[in-house]
This record gives sequence, C-alpha cells and structure tokens, in this order.
Amino acid sequence: MNALDSLIEALKRLPGVGQKSAQRMAYHLLQHDRTAMPRLAGALTAAVERIKHCERCHTFSETPLCIVCADAKRDRRLLCVVETPADQAALERTGSYLGYYFVLLGRLSPLDGVGTRQIGAAELLARAAEDGVEEVILATSFTAEGEATAHVLAEALRARGIKSTRLARGVPIGSELEYVDLGTIAHALSDRR
Amino acid sequence: MNALDSLIEALKRLPGVGQKSAQRMAYHLLQHDRTAMPRLAGALTAAVERIKHCERCHTFSETPLCIVCADAKRDRRLLCVVETPADQAALERTGSYLGYYFVLLGRLSPLDGVGTRQIGAAELLARAAEDGVEEVILATSFTAEGEATAHVLAEALRARGIKSTRLARGVPIGSELEYVDLGTIAHALSDRR
Repeated sequence: MNALDSLIEALKRLPGVGQKSAQRMAYHLLQHDRTAMPRLAGALTAAVERIKHCERCHTFSETPLCIVCADAKRDRRLLCVVETPADQAALERTGSYLGYYFVLLGRLSPLDGVGTRQIGAAELLARAAEDGVEEVILATSFTAEGEATAHVLAEALRARGIKSTRLARGVPIGSELEYVDLGTIAHALSDRR
Repeated sequence: MNALDSLIEALKRLPGVGQKSAQRMAYHLLQHDRTAMPRLAGALTAAVERIKHCERCHTFSETPLCIVCADAKRDRRLLCVVETPADQAALERTGSYLGYYFVLLGRLSPLDGVGTRQIGAAELLARAAEDGVEEVILATSFTAEGEATAHVLAEALRARGIKSTRLARGVPIGSELEYVDLGTIAHALSDRR
C-alpha cells in the first residue's frame, strides 16, 4: 500500500471518520497543512506513551495519581462514579462538584463480556468503604446499560451499608416541554420538588 | 500543556474536526483503540516524508514521476487540467479517461494572492505545447473561481493555438428535475444533444 492509502486507512480508525472524510483529511493535510502532520504524529506518540490510568480512580493520568486524587483539599465524603474519563471531564467543567471520582471505564454489558470485574466493581467497593466516604453518587449514563450498572452498584453498596445516590433525572435546561420525551417528563413530575 | 490536551489540539487541525469531535476522538483512541495511535503516527510521518509532487503533472507522488505520467500507454493527445489531486483521483475512479493530467494545486483567487504563477500556468502552457497534445480538457470546479480559472486558461491556450474544452454542465444522474437549481437546468437545456 502506498503512503497516501496507508494514511487514509489510518485516519479511518478515528471515530466518525469514513472513507470520504479520511480522503478529505489526507488531501487537506498534504496540500494545505503539512506542518500539522508531524505535530499530530508527535502528539499521538506522546499520548500513547505517557497517558496511563490513575491508580486510585482509573481516569487518564500521566502521573500515578491524577490531579483530582492527588488534591487533598477535595471533599472526601463524596465519591462520584462515572463511566468514562470524558464523563468525569464534563462533571469537572461544571465546577459544581468538589469530591473525588471513580471511573468504571465502561458499563455493564453482559452480552459484550463486560461484567462487574471489567468495570472494577470490587475496587470501587473497597474505595467506597474507605474512611471518610459518606455518599457514592452514581453518575452513569441514563441509558439501559448505564441504568443497569447503577442499579447493580447501588445494590452492592447497600449490602455493605454504604449510601448511594443517583443524578437527578428531569427536563434539560433550555427545553420546551412539548419537545421533551414523555419518559423524561414523567420522571421530572415524580421527582418534582 | 499535558499530553491529552496536546493530542486534542493536534486533532483539531484536521478539517471538519472541532473541540467536541477532537475530544471524542482522543478519548476513544485512549480508551478503546490504543493500537491505532502509533499506526496513525507512523502513517502521518511516512506520508509527510515520502509524498512529494510529480515533476510533470504536480499531483501527489512518492516517485519523481507519478504512475499516470510514467505510464507510456495512456493517450498523449489528451491533457486534463484539474484543481487538486483529489479531483484527479475522482476522474481516475470513473475509468473513462485515459489521457494525462495537469494538477493546478489551487484555482485563481486574486484576493487570496493566488495568481497564474501560483497555479503553474506557464508550466501548463509548456506542457500543452508538447508534441502530441491535441486537446486540453479544463476540468476545474463549476464555482466562480473554478470558472474564472478555466476562462483564463482557455484564453491563454487559444492565443497559442491549442484547443481546449470544458467538462459538460448538466443535470446530475439520479436527480429529479424539480429539485435541480435553475442555472443547471438552463445549461442542460442550451447544451442539449
């Protein structure tokens, strides 16, 4: 395979990039932005070499402990469980959560071979049982698999006498009620305050 | 900047990729497809090092002469002028053109500082004046700039007594007339055969 086809094939591995987009990217880089190519190559190499997982919360980190876990000033009473580092990053950007995290790096999906072991449930339970943790916030997705994951973890935590909560379900900010799906409205109604 | 942010910034240089897509790509690669990272890095490095321009037609090539220019069996009477290597690849995929190419690597755009010199007009004229070339097919885009480029080149070729033609304008295959723009219908009508 020649260098151009190899580049197009490699670009197709990016999520959301098909044959046409990969071609457009390759031609654009080669014709208009060659300096971006060694830069992206270097960033990929550095990232794959340097980015590991935090020993404590499993999020992406270049150091054994990520910056959140290494920050002693956060609220040790709260532990928030998310599916991915991207979910954690979204919560961090809200600026309204000051506790620690635990990143599952997935969600329960028995058909795909993802069980409690793959999401590190035992490590989460050990982490939640640590001195000082008072509440585990289950912030998995509101999809069938995310809900199932939250349910299983909530049961396991309750069996150990650890309190768990779930993110509130409701109408998103900026929505007109007419266009919100009925399940969401029903939840918003029953969870009204 | 940490390795993750550097990777996101580098991915944003790809055409059509903004902050959100770049984040999604970076998280996806790191969590689900780490092997794609060194592969893409290698493909980028190889491409930027090995892919140059063909001496004769200016398309992308790893050898001094591209495979089309190096192929003595093609029809020397035809020379097709396109804006980009991607345009040339599209024409090649049709399988219905057997002549040679000349790739402008751009189109006339005086406001952006792209004049006849930047698109290699002098080299095109020299190439078109070579023994054996009987017709220059101007296959630049049917946009204002592409049309202007075709017009300027056609005038210069005519002044040297070289015949030039333009790709046919008309209704695309699969279109319902109702939804085709009026300018295209007018052209299809006047160019009817």
